[in-house]
Amino acid sequence: MTDYDAALDQAIERLHDEGRYRTFIDIERKRGNFPHATWTRADGTEQPITVWCGNDYLGMGQHPVVLEAMHEAVETAGAGSGGTRNISGTTVYHKRLEAELAGLHGKEQALLFTSAYIANDATLSTLPKLFPGLIIYSDALNHASMIEGIRRNGGAKRVFRHNDVAHLRELLAADDPDAPKLIAFESVYSMDGDFGPIREICDIADEFGALTYLDEVHAVGMYGAHGGGVSERDGLAHRIDIINGTLGKAYGVMGGYIAASSRMCDAVRSYAPGFIFTTSLPPAIAAGAAASVRHLKSDAALREQHQTQAAILKTRLKALGLPLIDHGSHIVPLIVGDPIHTKKISDMLLERHGIYVQPINFPTVPRGTERLRFTPSPVHGPHEIDALVKGLDGLWSHCALNRQELAG
Amino acid sequence: MTDYDAALDQAIERLHDEGRYRTFIDIERKRGNFPHATWTRADGTEQPITVWCGNDYLGMGQHPVVLEAMHEAVETAGAGSGGTRNISGTTVYHKRLEAELAGLHGKEQALLFTSAYIANDATLSTLPKLFPGLIIYSDALNHASMIEGIRRNGGAKRVFRHNDVAHLRELLAADDPDAPKLIAFESVYSMDGDFGPIREICDIADEFGALTYLDEVHAVGMYGAHGGGVSERDGLAHRIDIINGTLGKAYGVMGGYIAASSRMCDAVRSYAPGFIFTTSLPPAIAAGAAASVRHLKSDAALREQHQTQAAILKTRLKALGLPLIDHGSHIVPLIVGDPIHTKKISDMLLERHGIYVQPINFPTVPRGTERLRFTPSPVHGPHEIDALVKGLDGLWSHCALNRQELAG
Repeated sequence: MTDYDAALDQAIERLHDEGRYRTFIDIERKRGNFPHATWTRADGTEQPITVWCGNDYLGMGQHPVVLEAMHEAVETAGAGSGGTRNISGTTVYHKRLEAELAGLHGKEQALLFTSAYIANDATLSTLPKLFPGLIIYSDALNHASMIEGIRRNGGAKRVFRHNDVAHLRELLAADDPDAPKLIAFESVYSMDGDFGPIREICDIADEFGALTYLDEVHAVGMYGAHGGGVSERDGLAHRIDIINGTLGKAYGVMGGYIAASSRMCDAVRSYAPGFIFTTSLPPAIAAGAAASVRHLKSDAALREQHQTQAAILKTRLKALGLPLIDHGSHIVPLIVGDPIHTKKISDMLLERHGIYVQPINFPTVPRGTERLRFTPSPVHGPHEIDALVKGLDGLWSHCALNRQELAG
Repeated sequence: MTDYDAALDQAIERLHDEGRYRTFIDIERKRGNFPHATWTRADGTEQPITVWCGNDYLGMGQHPVVLEAMHEAVETAGAGSGGTRNISGTTVYHKRLEAELAGLHGKEQALLFTSAYIANDATLSTLPKLFPGLIIYSDALNHASMIEGIRRNGGAKRVFRHNDVAHLRELLAADDPDAPKLIAFESVYSMDGDFGPIREICDIADEFGALTYLDEVHAVGMYGAHGGGVSERDGLAHRIDIINGTLGKAYGVMGGYIAASSRMCDAVRSYAPGFIFTTSLPPAIAAGAAASVRHLKSDAALREQHQTQAAILKTRLKALGLPLIDHGSHIVPLIVGDPIHTKKISDMLLERHGIYVQPINFPTVPRGTERLRFTPSPVHGPHEIDALVKGLDGLWSHCALNRQELAG
């Protein structure tokens, strides 16, 4: 008979051996005091830290309009929704948020999920049921949730080289012109911070009669005049059939969604197990997210501040020759290239400097490109940037790490 | 080229043809006034209703200890967690809740997911990676989330007839004795309200060296001296390797989890994409859920009241000869057996009597067993029960529906 404990020990040991066993850091952010937080060590002692790796890109997680909306919904409607969307779990809060999101992207409708992960997974795994014989063309660096969704039902898929439209065209041309097709890609790839070629992909989609599916998770709230993402900024939202977004990053709360035509949303709503068979988001979460989306439709200053902070941090790190990847987005990855070194630098930053940046390793990024990824935001002021830059500079020298030549 | 709109229209039309197109009802429950709520019609008009189909089984969604904990966490830590569990999204709130849940089930550890759906899906699809060659034995009536998880990675699976331990034994005996094995089942099946044969399945698991995976989603909070589910009530929790539960039903909030050995939780945490690549629950949700779990560890009176209300409702419906399924649990299903009739009765209850019970049809239940499913709770008093029983009695006569002989 199987020794299950031994098998588990082996699985965990493999991670230790590769230096990619993850240790979660317990933190508590302090509302009104972001990006500062308290780190509670395993032994119960506490240390003040600055969070430099969160995805609350604009600090909306502490914005009064969001928190007031949450308090009010808890006060009015209670804690949870009490059911799935179909069975007593659709509230006015959900409807309002979906209307807000449809408007954000200029689509007829939006459909809420408990996360953008499940929005990707459930939608992409359901589309082959709606379009029998569907072939999905997927960018090689698509997020795990898209990969899981595409892979789930064993439908036909083609993986094109990252951002390589010539390769995409080649794959499309090789398939049956009559087969239903969908191209799935992202607007901002979160680990390198590079942009997807949205216009070119839309052109190719038109040429081959393919649907387009764009993950804007690292862009909604942050790009476009109203926060509608890169597709809004570039005036291309109307050419995307399905836009996927999150309420857990720039909007600072939780949950995910798709925005699309009414019939698309209606069909996904009706056929996706990941939508049908799960308790809907709590009213307070929907209310907080709606307030955040609404606020960011008009607060362009916050978006500009965000870009400014990212530009300042990148300029300063570049001046020191640190191996930065810069594709012009808000994401600031610093390549270390080895899981054990990455972890060590992260530990030293945390313990010696109170700077919290989680090491990022395989499978989140390819082996050999292990990195630290900083997420500057409007709440990271000059003082915090100074402390980070000095801390990194010192550690880079102390550890005799490469400068410049490792840059991507 | 494909006409995608036509394909979507067809997919939606199929549902209309079968009478199982779902219309979501917009409701807003009023805290302090559960099970009463306001229904907002499509035209914007409002009607007061009583919710009879929610899964907030104990009314914890309006309990002051839960709401206070949520308010306090919003006030202290803000809206969202700001990251995945690994990247800045593990807070003291998550750790406290996981400790509470581990204690609830007498396990070394617990692992939070954004929902019990994703807990099932992610865990069951990850186990074959941890135990190569794993064969999963799955009860025929397991929830969609378990089916999705088991199916996802194309691992070996055997489906045994619902609650049929002889069939399960047959299937186990036919397989390689050395292959790793897992038996996945539920403690309370939510659509019929019957119990799984936990002890018998544990005995068989011991005999064949199989792991046991028990979904207690419709039992946690409601059964056992501390709300640990049927496995606690029957003194069998220590014989279950992985217990799956939800924070969105009896606990009244949102989220899901598994409770298991430390090494099991550590391995799932490290290998499951559905755990790794998603924003963690907001601090307020984790805080509210922890307060609810803690409260229900000692409030046995609420559990007793719940059972009493269910018993009263069932007794009264039986006295009228209505086709009730009764397996002694808290769930009260009334079989109509036709999707169109079920929808019509549901509509009439809502419009004429202000009683909200969603029709339940395929794929949630097998075709031909379409039903209304009532969820009495401690907040449904004699007045609400009276109104429901009289409304049903009248409609059953008015529509000339069968009494008694349809009962399962």
